[in-house]
Amino acid sequence: MPKKRLRDYGFTVGQLPPGRKNSITDIPGVRVGHVTLHKENGQCTGVTAILPHTGNLFREKVVAATHVINGFGKTTGLIQVNELGTIESPIMLTNTFSVPAVTEGTLRYLMAGDEGIGDGAGSVNIVVGECNDSYLNDMRGLHVSPEHAIEAIQQAGQNGENVIEGNVGAGTGMICFGWKGGIGTSSRQISTDHQMYHIGTLVLTNFGKREDLTILGVPVGQHLPSPDVPAPARDGSIMIIIGTDLPMTAGQLQRLCKRAALGLAKTGAIAHHGSGDIIIAFSNGNRVPHSPDKDIRDLRSIAEDGPLVSECFRAVIDTTEEAILNSLFTAETTCGRFNRIIYALPADQVIQLLQECKIW
Amino acid sequence: MPKKRLRDYGFTVGQLPPGRKNSITDIPGVRVGHVTLHKENGQCTGVTAILPHTGNLFREKVVAATHVINGFGKTTGLIQVNELGTIESPIMLTNTFSVPAVTEGTLRYLMAGDEGIGDGAGSVNIVVGECNDSYLNDMRGLHVSPEHAIEAIQQAGQNGENVIEGNVGAGTGMICFGWKGGIGTSSRQISTDHQMYHIGTLVLTNFGKREDLTILGVPVGQHLPSPDVPAPARDGSIMIIIGTDLPMTAGQLQRLCKRAALGLAKTGAIAHHGSGDIIIAFSNGNRVPHSPDKDIRDLRSIAEDGPLVSECFRAVIDTTEEAILNSLFTAETTCGRFNRIIYALPADQVIQLLQECKIW
Amino acid sequence: MPKKRLRDYGFTVGQLPPGRKNSITDIPGVRVGHVTLHKENGQCTGVTAILPHTGNLFREKVVAATHVINGFGKTTGLIQVNELGTIESPIMLTNTFSVPAVTEGTLRYLMAGDEGIGDGAGSVNIVVGECNDSYLNDMRGLHVSPEHAIEAIQQAGQNGENVIEGNVGAGTGMICFGWKGGIGTSSRQISTDHQMYHIGTLVLTNFGKREDLTILGVPVGQHLPSPDVPAPARDGSIMIIIGTDLPMTAGQLQRLCKRAALGLAKTGAIAHHGSGDIIIAFSNGNRVPHSPDKDIRDLRSIAEDGPLVSECFRAVIDTTEEAILNSLFTAETTCGRFNRIIYALPADQVIQLLQECKIW
Amino acid sequence: MPKKRLRDYGFTVGQLPPGRKNSITDIPGVRVGHVTLHKENGQCTGVTAILPHTGNLFREKVVAATHVINGFGKTTGLIQVNELGTIESPIMLTNTFSVPAVTEGTLRYLMAGDEGIGDGAGSVNIVVGECNDSYLNDMRGLHVSPEHAIEAIQQAGQNGENVIEGNVGAGTGMICFGWKGGIGTSSRQISTDHQMYHIGTLVLTNFGKREDLTILGVPVGQHLPSPDVPAPARDGSIMIIIGTDLPMTAGQLQRLCKRAALGLAKTGAIAHHGSGDIIIAFSNGNRVPHSPDKDIRDLRSIAEDGPLVSECFRAVIDTTEEAILNSLFTAETTCGRFNRIIYALPADQVIQLLQECKIW
Repeated sequence: MPKKRLRDYGFTVGQLPPGRKNSITDIPGVRVGHVTLHKENGQCTGVTAILPHTGNLFREKVVAATHVINGFGKTTGLIQVNELGTIESPIMLTNTFSVPAVTEGTLRYLMAGDEGIGDGAGSVNIVVGECNDSYLNDMRGLHVSPEHAIEAIQQAGQNGENVIEGNVGAGTGMICFGWKGGIGTSSRQISTDHQMYHIGTLVLTNFGKREDLTILGVPVGQHLPSPDVPAPARDGSIMIIIGTDLPMTAGQLQRLCKRAALGLAKTGAIAHHGSGDIIIAFSNGNRVPHSPDKDIRDLRSIAEDGPLVSECFRAVIDTTEEAILNSLFTAETTCGRFNRIIYALPADQVIQLLQECKIW
Repeated sequence: MPKKRLRDYGFTVGQLPPGRKNSITDIPGVRVGHVTLHKENGQCTGVTAILPHTGNLFREKVVAATHVINGFGKTTGLIQVNELGTIESPIMLTNTFSVPAVTEGTLRYLMAGDEGIGDGAGSVNIVVGECNDSYLNDMRGLHVSPEHAIEAIQQAGQNGENVIEGNVGAGTGMICFGWKGGIGTSSRQISTDHQMYHIGTLVLTNFGKREDLTILGVPVGQHLPSPDVPAPARDGSIMIIIGTDLPMTAGQLQRLCKRAALGLAKTGAIAHHGSGDIIIAFSNGNRVPHSPDKDIRDLRSIAEDGPLVSECFRAVIDTTEEAILNSLFTAETTCGRFNRIIYALPADQVIQLLQECKIW
Repeated sequence: MPKKRLRDYGFTVGQLPPGRKNSITDIPGVRVGHVTLHKENGQCTGVTAILPHTGNLFREKVVAATHVINGFGKTTGLIQVNELGTIESPIMLTNTFSVPAVTEGTLRYLMAGDEGIGDGAGSVNIVVGECNDSYLNDMRGLHVSPEHAIEAIQQAGQNGENVIEGNVGAGTGMICFGWKGGIGTSSRQISTDHQMYHIGTLVLTNFGKREDLTILGVPVGQHLPSPDVPAPARDGSIMIIIGTDLPMTAGQLQRLCKRAALGLAKTGAIAHHGSGDIIIAFSNGNRVPHSPDKDIRDLRSIAEDGPLVSECFRAVIDTTEEAILNSLFTAETTCGRFNRIIYALPADQVIQLLQECKIW
Repeated sequence: MPKKRLRDYGFTVGQLPPGRKNSITDIPGVRVGHVTLHKENGQCTGVTAILPHTGNLFREKVVAATHVINGFGKTTGLIQVNELGTIESPIMLTNTFSVPAVTEGTLRYLMAGDEGIGDGAGSVNIVVGECNDSYLNDMRGLHVSPEHAIEAIQQAGQNGENVIEGNVGAGTGMICFGWKGGIGTSSRQISTDHQMYHIGTLVLTNFGKREDLTILGVPVGQHLPSPDVPAPARDGSIMIIIGTDLPMTAGQLQRLCKRAALGLAKTGAIAHHGSGDIIIAFSNGNRVPHSPDKDIRDLRSIAEDGPLVSECFRAVIDTTEEAILNSLFTAETTCGRFNRIIYALPADQVIQLLQECKIW
């Protein structure tokens, strides 16, 4: 029986309507795949792959941007995204020390599909984000291999329309507000010019002190009973991936990125000193060919005057908050190395607290 | 009878202890002064001056940094602060179109006090922030003069230890979440190495849609009755000034700046497209002489490993939230040009909503 | 008799063809105007206005970007340009302490032409750059008035197709490598997709030590005889304004901006500690209406793969270098306050040095 | 017989005195090591390691900063350097596709030396820069292994006081202005407060069109005869590593970084669209312990008023230019995959051109 998401309990974040799946994969073409490593030898980690579209990303790049809330992190690939405003690889997530293996696996995957890469067609830029799962996972063991990255990409292509959340993929060993965290997602519909678009967010949650957890304004972290063996108080990180099919420029996407911090704040985060809180946004509604056929190209953008931009900001704030909460509601109690246990958020108690507090 | 602040009703923001005055002026040496213009001819505006210390700021600069959440704003002076990591003038606030007059007044004030400025000792960089008060104020009338800026600085020097909040100084004509906004402040104590330091925040609030107002997690904006003539739905801005006597580097202060966005978020802000949400932080615990007497200088910084930095982050988040709320609780119903009225936040109704919701 | 420019002596910078006037006004629609203040009471300063196009800039903005090489400067308006990627005012240049007056004059000019500004249509962002001319000019006297700014804009509109260079407008009191500097300009043609475009640069030069002056690779600064009363060794600044009718995005324009540093370097500049070396670029080939009529807008960009982008970079580097040299070749010996004299570059001696050295 | 460097021919760059070895290793404690892979199967690449000091870098970090001139590059580790202003690993250089292997090797090296890394003491941030050597090297073959990175670090520790330049280490397969490029270095002495300090630069050169090469202002690239089989015209990159023992803050180091662009420009570079021109600077004169023993720490900085900062800027500009030229003068003709040959710069012809031109 799948664990319920926040919305399954009758609670919503904000007023905007979610997409059909309330998932980053509500954006046409976006796919997500996971490889989970959870074994007795201390492996409690994995890889998650997000495909901005299902074609050849190197030959048909998506417009993109990034933002760093706090940079105690090892995400790779952002320099080129910032310069060119495009992403040309799957966006990969894993544990901190597996960034090299996942980068290499993704590189091998892309090389296998395109003989020009690294030769006549130039190099390729690979984006890999990470959080530190070393409480539950034997991170020093470097258990993720390049093949795991390839497998995650393939999973995304094959079964990637429905995102599995919680302790899965890169989220396998993550901890959020002292409870089990991991992968979460959410989306909103944006209607404009007689067409429906989506903004979707996927998060990898690994941050927060137990007492800071806030859900829909309620400081539940101060009221939930502590487990027998509480998680250690550590700083931690969050990766936030935002996608849309609205045709935005890189500059507009960067404005979206900055709003994720506002959604993050509502869960009680303070972006600790030791956190790598990093945001990557892409629009597959604006694509850039690797070899353009003319020098002056058409691009589209959303009008910045009028309410549309601010509605997009709101969608980012709300989906960030809801994706984080979904990661908490769906993650299950997990036993990692040294038999360390991180408990699932006690959803029933949380819901009871929310209901007691809810006067509206 | 002074209007009550949030804390006077028995509510607190966060767990950290406030300074004695719960004000940016809890930081030793910091002073704040106002000039208020509120006349029948449509003037509903003013100037606020913040002195990082009471000496010659040009000759003894304070370490400083800035951050832009959303840059639809006309704040001046940030380029040099970003390059050199210092502030050498009072930090001034006013309405958008009075930035030139206030800059010129501050320049004249500084020139009058130092013959070297603009001649042998080089130029001086003046920091002026702004929000758009054109609903209540005849902003096109350019009613603020350079002399008003000088007067605000003098007020700060003479009576600046206690900050007047609400519809005063630069806050005279501002609107926040559809209610009367303006100036607010708050502070927190930070104890370390057997010494007490402070982090204090002063805000100029002019942002937010009525229905988004959130106080201590409670979406009061959705429950308060609307006034007969509601304020128009406009984007708007916030200026956030953070001070401390903790000896921080410019890099550390910039990290503080970024946390203000998290406090802002908790009040319901989405940093609209049309907002100039700008943060300026200074430490008067690290000072830089205009003419240093040796080439290698001692500077101090706070240790970045350990809990101190994150505690400072928390203080910024909490004081930003509380300063915004204080601006709302203290501002009074104001009648501006064309007899337009913006009502004070109905504090009693808000408190009732908070009490109904408070289960802890 | 007009002073000759570098190219009149038979020397060229780089291989790309210049525009017809070798001026920023080779870009269709761009205009430049000056007001010069040079009086016996110590006034030796002025205002220069650059119009990105001759229509209503507030209602029809141009795409724009900025870059700061060194930020010891007081240029105003960049925050909003960076956020929105547009410029909606003339670009104004003046002395450091006249930024407030020129901002206010430009504001009044724009308000006079548009009743919505500062009221129903929101505020307007004004871009004013500056250098410190206080050796020759009584900068503390604040002799530039708002009316001078208005007059410079009007001059641009009326006679602005041919740029006067040298000791004129904002350049009246500037000093460059110990010689008289001021205004210079240059342009290059860019042909693509069967159409001719231009990149043009205008500089306000006020930087450099005498011995560092380098012209076409020749360190002439080490060989020119010193005047009887040499200029003082001071740090100083340069403002670099880049325009184009190529339809670029803000991100692409920012890449252009960064190349100006490379052209600057070739003249011997080191971007001293005390310099405000600031670059502003605009494309009037991409315009953004103040009130767009639909939410998804067409925008154009240049293809980033292929040689076009790099050719644009080269054009920026070459026009920056040549514009600086033009400011030096055209500026005339100027007597300022206290009978201080700054001599014109001795062009004949420079040319002789270049010819001795030129083996190609 | 070692190839001569520029200075061995009697030419100097600028007026500042070089360090004893004219090398980044003139900075006390800095070491450089190489591993070179040059085999018949198409391997023509390698790894270079720069140690900011010879102790445990993770436990005793150096203050650091970065700057991106053009970001078409895959350098990793900059996010954390930008946030914290420190470097805690050797700075590694290699080919574009070997960044993952080198990162993993460096990680393993650091883990082997410190049990806390990746466990109780948190993660570690590894800095790896790169250029694309795929003309000469079978870059798709991924021939660099993690062990090669470890070996380069060990080489640095053992024999790293004298830097081998040219086609060695990461420079083995690089091409600069159509000639063989690779590793180059240079340094300058800075005396202040009765003490001698150094600024040193090491470059990995892989950029430039043949006709653009400029040496000491002389456009030699337009006059040198072309080889029988010229190198293809490709964009390319440069990595620039700046070190100093002057006690600078991260903000000051970032100002140094930006000046490297000015030195780069003097060699004829235009920072092509496809270049990853990236600068990393560190000061081992300011160190930050991993576990500080008190909350308020002493740090030192150089005075920003006065000539010292600008002298440091000049040292960066001059060492960048000279290091690039040293990489060209010392690199030898190299045969890579498919028997492709890149010729050494014909030093004698260059010197003859310089001498013909030199009138001073």
